[in-house]
Amino acid sequence: MIVTGLIERKRDGGRLTDAEWRALMAAYAAGRVPDYQMAALVMAAFLRGLDAGETAALTEAMLASGASLDLAAVARRRVDKHSTGGVGDKVSLVLAPLAAACGVVVPMISGRGLGHTGGTLDKLEAIPGFRTSLTLAEARAQIERIGCALLGQTTEIAPADRKLYALRDATSTVDSIPLIAASIMSKKLAEGLTGLVLDVKRGSGSFLPELERGLELARTMIALGAAHGCEVVALLTAMDRPLGRACGTSLETEEAILALKGEGPADLMTVIYALGAEMLVLAGAADDTDAARRQMEIAISTGRAADKFKAIIEAQDGNPAVVDDPALLPQAEACELYESPRRGFVAGVEPRAVGRGITALGGGRTRMDDAIDPTVGFVITARPGDWVEAGEPLATIFAKDAAGVDAGRAALAAAITIEEEAGPPLPLISHRVTAAGAEAYD
Amino acid sequence: MIVTGLIERKRDGGRLTDAEWRALMAAYAAGRVPDYQMAALVMAAFLRGLDAGETAALTEAMLASGASLDLAAVARRRVDKHSTGGVGDKVSLVLAPLAAACGVVVPMISGRGLGHTGGTLDKLEAIPGFRTSLTLAEARAQIERIGCALLGQTTEIAPADRKLYALRDATSTVDSIPLIAASIMSKKLAEGLTGLVLDVKRGSGSFLPELERGLELARTMIALGAAHGCEVVALLTAMDRPLGRACGTSLETEEAILALKGEGPADLMTVIYALGAEMLVLAGAADDTDAARRQMEIAISTGRAADKFKAIIEAQDGNPAVVDDPALLPQAEACELYESPRRGFVAGVEPRAVGRGITALGGGRTRMDDAIDPTVGFVITARPGDWVEAGEPLATIFAKDAAGVDAGRAALAAAITIEEEAGPPLPLISHRVTAAGAEAYD
Repeated sequence: MIVTGLIERKRDGGRLTDAEWRALMAAYAAGRVPDYQMAALVMAAFLRGLDAGETAALTEAMLASGASLDLAAVARRRVDKHSTGGVGDKVSLVLAPLAAACGVVVPMISGRGLGHTGGTLDKLEAIPGFRTSLTLAEARAQIERIGCALLGQTTEIAPADRKLYALRDATSTVDSIPLIAASIMSKKLAEGLTGLVLDVKRGSGSFLPELERGLELARTMIALGAAHGCEVVALLTAMDRPLGRACGTSLETEEAILALKGEGPADLMTVIYALGAEMLVLAGAADDTDAARRQMEIAISTGRAADKFKAIIEAQDGNPAVVDDPALLPQAEACELYESPRRGFVAGVEPRAVGRGITALGGGRTRMDDAIDPTVGFVITARPGDWVEAGEPLATIFAKDAAGVDAGRAALAAAITIEEEAGPPLPLISHRVTAAGAEAYD
Repeated sequence: MIVTGLIERKRDGGRLTDAEWRALMAAYAAGRVPDYQMAALVMAAFLRGLDAGETAALTEAMLASGASLDLAAVARRRVDKHSTGGVGDKVSLVLAPLAAACGVVVPMISGRGLGHTGGTLDKLEAIPGFRTSLTLAEARAQIERIGCALLGQTTEIAPADRKLYALRDATSTVDSIPLIAASIMSKKLAEGLTGLVLDVKRGSGSFLPELERGLELARTMIALGAAHGCEVVALLTAMDRPLGRACGTSLETEEAILALKGEGPADLMTVIYALGAEMLVLAGAADDTDAARRQMEIAISTGRAADKFKAIIEAQDGNPAVVDDPALLPQAEACELYESPRRGFVAGVEPRAVGRGITALGGGRTRMDDAIDPTVGFVITARPGDWVEAGEPLATIFAKDAAGVDAGRAALAAAITIEEEAGPPLPLISHRVTAAGAEAYD
């Protein structure tokens, strides 16, 4: 394999064969292809694109670079959910135990927060003692026992993807649909899934703000899944404002616990039920989404969903008492209301500004190795379209100290706009995409 | 300076400011920007292009990364020649002493052969003892004394270019006009030139086979020179067949010595006089190209040109006796005629096939650190358009042993095509390009 020849071909708009992608990624994972050659190839791929066959070959090559969770003997169907990421998105913490309580086998590998978005692993680790660094063998044993494990990407899984992702991050080549889809699916397929529900965020706070690009990502991942016996269903959901009220690690974990008991904010519950219904149907745990929704409501009202979360926390060395008493989660030192500076309509709650505010408070990351303060953040009760009076509380700021409160206040002043008029926000769930195509979500 | 931001802007078709190019290349030369980030940026620049201002800024930044030959006190005008490279192109070895013998100050920094092309440094080093690794101070003293020095790129000159060139070579980003032009001009401007004659090769054996791209390179370099007080004149010359007869390091040095005595092949002498005339006029050593040509003819016929080469060789620790007795150059062990396999017209002598043949004989490089055998190569007497009989000698093969002779025979069989008809070759010199535009060469 002459790497310069592969770079040259991709540079000139040609395609690499399946065998070439396989050999290239194996050599890269083994350190036999230098980062600078891969960087040139990836920039050429970013600008010239990858066709469907190449995207599948790259996915396969990254999957094959590592180990997989072999769950065929545990259950016939295994279903996970993946979100493209946003602010206030604590859905995974609720959905994994909820679906598991309804009989779905959920092997869930999550990531950490970066930039303006939070990460599921950070929120789980806000629970005292919770351990996310399971080996694949540990995860498999836990899934066999209680139907669910919540872990981080281990070094065993798709090492070529991990290496390539870090390189893309440093070379401004992240934002490419084939590369994003291959990266996500190589890891998700390593979970040994038969079904995947994809939450594609749209709007200003998402990674792919344009609807068409979100739909393209959904279609690409559906095709990649189909090639590996994994049925993918995607919902396009709104990220032009935070999801739910809590934004910040520990605050979101608390809101997730409330949601597991049926006490979550309406928008969050709507998204949870919609995504969960797809999971239950894909897993064969319900015949249709109406039946699935009823099962989930029962799991919540009977306490089985919360109990499943306790079981997961206990299995992963955390303190399950947080489910009954969320005050056991780490709490911020300073806490203050944020009031509306004027009367008018809430025209927008900008997720990126909220995310940057959390980072300003010490609760976010700009680099992967930054430490975060789990206690800080916001609980934003104002929703776009609300009429508010001057001095009316819009949010609560949770900070380390008075300086943090001031920083939080400045962030919210930038994030929450009060105007004389407010346009309609994006529909909470706008599209459903399957192998059959995209349709409006009703 | 956030490098990912610069990569992203170039990726999306934007431009970097002069200050950004300067800061980027300074940081890269100093090792503060990793190769993988530069590789991504260069691939984006390759595919998105650089505008004239960016090309100038990149040239300036690479020039500024190192030292320059300060020759202002030595002579008011300093003129060099640069060729984009080909097979059999030994023009520099003749032109530097010839122009110097006519009063031109020639600070000439050359390169080594790579791929199918030979390099001036290798040919000079075929002369026993000849030392090309002069420091800038040594070169300056020699130029002051005898008007010419022939040296390799020192570590003092344009270190950012040297680093970037190696990276481009490994990442398939060599073949870009702005990047090529900036690389050449950063080094040429470091010679402290007031004039540069550019030999842009066209045809199958050149790096830019298409005429339009050759013209574009000429125009780009003319503009870069103009911005630094260096007048550039370009001639477009044929590289659809080797220049002259000798192809191979030591064989070419011998042919160059013959040319300095007026005994070179006609095509080689034509190109030498044409490029040389431009040098003399740029240097103010002749009023027009006709007068320049007469001066060069006199310098050759009186032996002053050959004497100047002896002075240069002596100054650089070589054995000047090779000029009188070229048999002192390293000689091949095996030598055999190559005869025409059939009667017909010589339809082509393909330079790349000849160049690959030299490499097959051990006389070329595929990597910059390969050692080469200076003795091997070909003397090809057949010219495109010649009528030849079966069994008529077309070339002489110079090799290390009988196996080499066989390899040389196979290479020539691929390179020299004999057909019933032969189309016309490219005109030896087709265009002359100056700041005023391109015109047909008469």
